Amino acid sequence: MSDPRIRVASDEDWPAIWPFFDATVQAGETYAFPTDLTIETGRGWWMERPPGETVVLEEELPEEGSRILGSAKMGPNRPAHGDHIGTASFMVAPEARGRGVGRALGEHVVQWHRDHGFRGIQFNAVVETNTAAVQLWRSLGFEIVGTVPGAFRSPTHGYVGLHVMFLPLV
Amino acid sequence: MSDPRIRVASDEDWPAIWPFFDATVQAGETYAFPTDLTIETGRGWWMERPPGETVVLEEELPEEGSRILGSAKMGPNRPAHGDHIGTASFMVAPEARGRGVGRALGEHVVQWHRDHGFRGIQFNAVVETNTAAVQLWRSLGFEIVGTVPGAFRSPTHGYVGLHVMFLPLV
Repeated sequence: MSDPRIRVASDEDWPAIWPFFDATVQAGETYAFPTDLTIETGRGWWMERPPGETVVLEEELPEEGSRILGSAKMGPNRPAHGDHIGTASFMVAPEARGRGVGRALGEHVVQWHRDHGFRGIQFNAVVETNTAAVQLWRSLGFEIVGTVPGAFRSPTHGYVGLHVMFLPLV
Repeated sequence: MSDPRIRVASDEDWPAIWPFFDATVQAGETYAFPTDLTIETGRGWWMERPPGETVVLEEELPEEGSRILGSAKMGPNRPAHGDHIGTASFMVAPEARGRGVGRALGEHVVQWHRDHGFRGIQFNAVVETNTAAVQLWRSLGFEIVGTVPGAFRSPTHGYVGLHVMFLPLV
């Protein structure tokens, strides 16, 4: 991405996020979100409230204004005695794949956790056949802590494992 | 436990569960539930709705009627493409520890998942210093898939790991 603009998402951004959120969930290869969400019921699954945060990555188009290419949500992975470890999820618009949107959002998320004093970031369920994601997180320093065998039902690959990945920040 | 009675919990059981739920959460050694719950806000954190279920283990007392000694909640660990793997949590009343309540509930939970066609059970966050629990789950066939280092803040032990544990059922 050349000069991506990443900013905190507002409720008004949700209608622009929803189409690629829904397309990703319906494809069913990368996330175990409910598959019967609507634009209204889906909102609460993606738009975080403090202490969490949802961001969007957008590009400026000369004539049309800005366009959202991807989004990430982040925050504490668990409450109370687990709230020093963060977590995050990522969605990239299908038409923007391969342009580094995921990497830019990933780097932003790591920095956000550093800035907020988290001691690490845990991804709870990275689908093992989502090799682009696994490679990306590895390149940011995440390691696979373990893999729950067959925990995800992939339309293409059948039962595949879910990686727990972790990046220590201290 | 000699002849434990385990039955589905109803909303009327919550006031009898709350004291040992709260004591366990306040002790802060085994679960990352929010520590500021009340009897009202805590209810939704423990009393599952279908397809999940909450059960209680109770004993009959000759003169006083029945007394609840422990509780477990169970259900799909993730929605949609992850809903073939279950999960569960357990709470035992402090005065009933060492009597096999946890084991009886654990065996019940494993059977419940078998009966409902789950392909495995995943525990997402077993505190590594909770050695009684780790030993119990191992004795029921669970294995440690991986350990997220320092992911739990124990009042007694400081930052300790959280085990992901898994029992395949197919």
